[in-house]
Order: sequence, then structure tokens, then C-alpha cells
Amino acid sequence: MKKPFKNPEPGDKIEVIINGKSDVGILLDSHDTGVLLLKLDSGYNIGFKKEDISEIRVLEKKKIEKKDEGKFELSHQKPVIDFILTGGTISSKLDPKTGGVKWLIDAKELFSMYPEIFEIADVRVYSPFMKASENMDSRDWIRIAKIVSKSLNDENVKGVIISHGTDTLHYTSSALSFMLGKLNKPVVLTYSQRSSDRGSADSRLNLICSARAALSDIAEVILVGHANMDDEYCFALRGTKVRKMHSSRRDTFRAINTKPIAKIWPDGKIETILEYNKRGKNNTKIKVDAVFDNRVALIKFYPGQDPSILDYYKKKGYRAIIIEMSGLGHVCSEGKNNWIPKIQELIKKRMFVYAAPQTLYGRLDPFVYSPGRKLQEIGVVYLEDILPETALVKLGFVLGHKSWRGSIATKEKMLQNLAGEFNPRLGEEFL
Amino acid sequence: MKKPFKNPEPGDKIEVIINGKSDVGILLDSHDTGVLLLKLDSGYNIGFKKEDISEIRVLEKKKIEKKDEGKFELSHQKPVIDFILTGGTISSKLDPKTGGVKWLIDAKELFSMYPEIFEIADVRVYSPFMKASENMDSRDWIRIAKIVSKSLNDENVKGVIISHGTDTLHYTSSALSFMLGKLNKPVVLTYSQRSSDRGSADSRLNLICSARAALSDIAEVILVGHANMDDEYCFALRGTKVRKMHSSRRDTFRAINTKPIAKIWPDGKIETILEYNKRGKNNTKIKVDAVFDNRVALIKFYPGQDPSILDYYKKKGYRAIIIEMSGLGHVCSEGKNNWIPKIQELIKKRMFVYAAPQTLYGRLDPFVYSPGRKLQEIGVVYLEDILPETALVKLGFVLGHKSWRGSIATKEKMLQNLAGEFNPRLGEEFL
Repeated sequence: MKKPFKNPEPGDKIEVIINGKSDVGILLDSHDTGVLLLKLDSGYNIGFKKEDISEIRVLEKKKIEKKDEGKFELSHQKPVIDFILTGGTISSKLDPKTGGVKWLIDAKELFSMYPEIFEIADVRVYSPFMKASENMDSRDWIRIAKIVSKSLNDENVKGVIISHGTDTLHYTSSALSFMLGKLNKPVVLTYSQRSSDRGSADSRLNLICSARAALSDIAEVILVGHANMDDEYCFALRGTKVRKMHSSRRDTFRAINTKPIAKIWPDGKIETILEYNKRGKNNTKIKVDAVFDNRVALIKFYPGQDPSILDYYKKKGYRAIIIEMSGLGHVCSEGKNNWIPKIQELIKKRMFVYAAPQTLYGRLDPFVYSPGRKLQEIGVVYLEDILPETALVKLGFVLGHKSWRGSIATKEKMLQNLAGEFNPRLGEEFL
Repeated sequence: MKKPFKNPEPGDKIEVIINGKSDVGILLDSHDTGVLLLKLDSGYNIGFKKEDISEIRVLEKKKIEKKDEGKFELSHQKPVIDFILTGGTISSKLDPKTGGVKWLIDAKELFSMYPEIFEIADVRVYSPFMKASENMDSRDWIRIAKIVSKSLNDENVKGVIISHGTDTLHYTSSALSFMLGKLNKPVVLTYSQRSSDRGSADSRLNLICSARAALSDIAEVILVGHANMDDEYCFALRGTKVRKMHSSRRDTFRAINTKPIAKIWPDGKIETILEYNKRGKNNTKIKVDAVFDNRVALIKFYPGQDPSILDYYKKKGYRAIIIEMSGLGHVCSEGKNNWIPKIQELIKKRMFVYAAPQTLYGRLDPFVYSPGRKLQEIGVVYLEDILPETALVKLGFVLGHKSWRGSIATKEKMLQNLAGEFNPRLGEEFL
């Protein structure tokens, strides 16, 4: 039997009584009309069936100033974080009218979902576009890089947070790492794997830890999100050494071939694990280097694969290819699908061919077996322990520079550790 | 100063004295002429510089009957294992003449490197070919499957071991899983990551554990190798749920989206972890189903990728594609690189399009976001938690059957759990 209940506003502190039991928390926007969503003091979100509720009391009305995109009444007492919404699950909520996804696009809406970050900082919200991340490409990376660089060069800003879909977040984090270069402040990418309408939402912890990271002295492009399946703390992961490794887990992003830079707790405690670039005391201006040549491709090698796929890319005008090679850096080197003559032919036609590890973990080594030696001999460049995804982004970035486009200059840049994409101290410790 | 020393034969039990210190072990073939390689009782291989050695004593001459390929004097007291050499690091040793790799191709050579497995079983050695695994393709999978099926149908044989290169071993293990179907005996694939000439060789433990597995009641296609960085025990991993995850570590092969089937110790102890198909008491004959249609391809989706790569495959006469999609199963669904119209066009032209997870871990779910729903609507089939590599092999296998080639029959087979390639009980426990 449906019982009557008051309908307080999201952001209000309320008490909910079910079967004589009382729960107190902040009312969240819930777009399941039958469910009341409450953020408990413990930090967990809990959903109640409205029909089970016997009473609701408003304990405290939400404190919110009207904020519009780009126009803020800042407290001037808290540090300023620029928050750039680009889409993804973290920036979306269910639209009760359509059943589809609706974007959160202004500070007010963001506040109603995530009031805590507004307690930590004066948050200025911007949104260049709202996209699911599988729809992003290099033009989006360039737009984000340019916006971020403006925030970095604003002396009022302590750090930047970018919320982003998870699917291709590791490509974007690589792109920003290369395009922004040496930083003076933190650039934090974050995400959620679960919709904020659900009880199991991971966005709250990720956002609070991201705010802590944005105010920290980690002046790098980092990805901040759940360190494990608990809601206890987050990892800060280097933007060029991270990959989405699970389709749904909250701790989907993993440091590959390196450690996380730090553990970050929601209360602001930070435990450093790796060395990192520290916040600049002189607040040096950032010169964004947001260029990209899209004539690059990534091919995953597999047994029996016809190497004439390389001809397709050549014909289409591509300039350079990353091949995800097997093992220490091999492709088929005999029989009818011998890749070596085809690669040699393409390199002679001024295509650049780079190798990245299909295993993801570990380092390539062309010197152990003869096919590797042969491939290197004909001009394939082995990209050490780089992630294939990072390799692709780096290649487009490097070729985006006219002065780096010669085969020697490109090779030199591709082998230079521009943004921590290589781990020169890597042993066999990670897997 | 070089000291004189006796030159005992590989396989002899010897004592080596250096600086008054004595080491006892089995002499191994060493192709570094300056190094004497000894297998200690502890199981470790140790190399001594010959110039440091003051004395060598032969304690026991090797016991070896002359064995040639396919012609064996079996003890008739031990169980019989058929050992199929296909190449790879595990079947190779340095050729002291050329500095290159030389294949181990007969029982005598195998014995001189790995005497222990001959103590556990009567080992019959065959070799259909010797290849680095990056050079293998579906024809090789078919040849191996046919040879293995003969061994499985020989009532004298207790189990089969296949030694194989690591680079594409997980493709072969998938292929054999599909081609051999329900088994009556164990089919064990094994490997080494380090050359057996080196002190850190991993082949000994892998081979002994493989022999234990071949004599066990695990009647599945399994991959047996180091469980971790120690030389203590191995895992038996299901052939369709395994992937090479590190370019050089001994425990490179990992169960993805499932647990290992068992832990196997070199002394024969086996600890079961997962349910498995048990050795048949009635020794049912195996009907090998060794077919493959090579007109299949694997594409890894990445941001900004031009979907007209699909036209290339269509023009080349390919029948079906696996797309490694991002996240829960997405590709770009808007803008100039919108994949959806292109996929729809190709499906209308009778190309089959299947989705596998680029994250490797976790399960696809087309129902969470609208692009997934749209892709499924236009005919893309989502392959749950399958590995992309396994998906490719399965697709070629399924299309190798004339009667399964219709779009409905193919889809039905692709979604049927033929060889444990799906984990229907998968939660979020693995990463």
C-alpha cells in the first residue's frame, strides 16, 4: 500500500523512518520515481522504496547559492578548482522522462549530486562538450588541453579536475600528458563506472579524492579513482601508464609496468608511492602543445593475419603504424603471411613502423630472437614497455609537429621519455 | 689459468669442486663451451665457469636407452605420455656453432635436457614441425589437433604434452579446445620463457608439472606453467580462458575471468580449484573436428579510428569480424567516424560482426548504454566475457563448418559455451 510522504529537495538533510528504524542523510536526486536515494554520513548511498517509508522529516534545508556555468559566487576563502565536465557516466543521470541519459552540466546540478567537493574547494564548472568517451577523438583531446592550460595559467586556480567517460579515458590521459608537458599544478582525470543514481555509485569517492589530488602538490596528469573494490581510498595513476582493465569494476584503471603515484584518502591524507613532478613554486606558465596528426593507426598482430593490411593504411595516406606485437616483439616471419618483407616495403615507402607489447605487461626486446633483430634491422622501432594505446597517442602527437616529422626526428622523439610513458627502471615486478 | 678437467656426458651425475666447495648434480648440455651447467638436487640449474673448476668426479653414469623419433624401447612399467614438440624456446637450445637457435627434435636430446620426465613416464616423442609460435597459423593448429587425436585414441597413452612457443600459445590452446571437443584424457600445452641453456630456465618445472598433469584425471586442454615467480608449483589453466600477459615473466600466462583449474606440484600433488571434465573411464574415442575458415579478422577499436577498415575486410572476402570494443561493448557512435552505419551496411552485405572486450577482464553488456543497444539491434553479437583472441579462433572454427555458416547458426554456435570460453558464473571477482 502506497503511503503518503513529503517530497523534500535534493541536497536537504533528512530523516527517513521505515518500520520504526531511522536513517539520516542528504537526499540525492533519484530518477527512479519509486526510490528515495539517501547519502548516509558513512558516505554510502542507500535507496529506499518510497512505499516502505512511513515518515520523512527535513532536518536542514540545503545550502546552495545559485551558480551558473562560468559564473560563480566564490567564497574566496577556499582554494579554487576548475572542474571540466566532458561527459561520461560520472556526468550523467537518468532522465526520468525518457529513461535515457541526461547530462549534468552546471554547478547547481553537480552540487545536488556531489555536495562534498564544494565543501573542499570553490569549484568553477566548465563544459566544452558532453560526450560518451568512445565518441571522442584527437580534436576533443586538443579542446580539453587548451581549456586546461588556461586554468593552469590562472593564478587563482589551485588545480584542475576533468570528469570523463571510462571507455577511452586512458587515451585522453595520455594525450593530455603529452600536450600539456611539464606541469605547475595537478591535472586530475576522474570517472565513474556506476551511474550516480545507483546505490553502488563510485563517483563520490572518486570526486572527493580528485579534489584532494587537485589541491595536492602532484603536478602531473593523473587519473584518480578507486584503488580497489572498497570505498576507502583512491589511487593517483600516471596518465601515460594506465589502462582500463575491466568492463565494470570500480577499480578498473590499473597502473601498467609501474606503481601508482600515490594513495589518496577522502579526508585528504596522501601516501606517496612513486616520485612525481612537484607543484611549481614559481607558477611557471604552461605552453600547451595541442597538436595531433590523425594519419596514425594501431594494428594488433595475430596468428595467420595477412600483412597486406599495411597496404590499406599506406593507400589511405597513413604516415605511421603501431603494431601490437606478440611476446618480446614479434610478428610472423616466414611462410605466406611473412610480415617482414611487407614491413620493409612500407618503410622504404616512408611509412614509420613502431612496435608495442601485446602482452601489455613487460618490455619488448628485439635482441633475444632473430625475428626481432631482423625487424629492428629493417627499421622497426621498439617502444620498450609503452602501452599500445599510449604509443598510438604519442605517435599522433609527435607527428603533429612539422619539425619532428623526419624519420630520424620522429624516432628520436618516440624513444624520448616525454611524459613518463617509459619506465626505465622496470624489472619483472609488475603483473 | 685454465685447469684440466674430465668431460663427462650430459645426464651423468657428477660432483664439481671449486675452491674446495663441492656441488653435486646432473650434468646438463651447455652450449657455452666455457660453462658447465649442473642441475642440482634442489631443482635449480647452476652454471660454473670451467676455468674455476679444480676437479670433476663422475658419480653415476646416465641411464639412457637409445631412443629415436617414433621408435622407442618403452619400459612397459611406466604410463605412456605422447610428447609433441612444435618448437618455441622450450624446444630449442643455443647452437654453439652458429650462435643461433637449434631445435631439440628427438627423445635423446630431450632426455639430455630434461631427464626427469623420463623417470615419471615412458615418453614417446613426435614432432610434426618446429616453429617459433608467432609463425604458426590455423594450418598448424589443425596438424597438431590431428596428431593429438591419434594419441588420445591410442589406448596405451595416458596423456599428451605439447611443447610450444609462448607468443601465440593461447591461440593454439583455444584452437585445440574447440577442435578436440570433449576429451577422454589430458592434453597439456607447455612452454618456457627462458632458454634451457640459462640458469634461470623455467622449462624443468613446467615439464615435470606437465607430465604430472598428463597423468592426472584433468581431461581438458590445459596450459601448464609457472604459477608465480618461484619454482615451486604450476597452474593448470583452461585453454580458452588464458592469455600471455607479460613479455618475459615465467608466470606470464594468466587465467582471465576465471580461476586456474588446479595447482600442480612437481612431486605429483594436485590441488583442484575449479570443476573440470574428468578422465573417461570408458576411454571414448575422440573425433577430431579440425576445421578453420581463415576469412575472419580481429580489429581493436580505438578513438578516432576510421570505420572504413571494415570495407577493406569486406573487399578482401572476409566473412566475419571480431571487434575488440571499449568498455561494456562500444565503438564510436557519432560524428564523422561513426561506426554504426558502417557496421549496419556490412551486416546487410552478410558480414558477421561480433564484439569482444578490449578490457580483457569483465563481461560485455549491450544493455547499459544506448550505443550498445543500438549495436545489438543492428545485428552485432556480444560475446560475453570471452577473450578477444579466443573469440577470433572460435569464429574461424565455427565458420569452418559448412552447416554452421548461416547467420543464425553461426550466432547460435558463437553464443554456445563450446569449450569453457564463457564463464556463466562470472561476477566481478577477477582482475
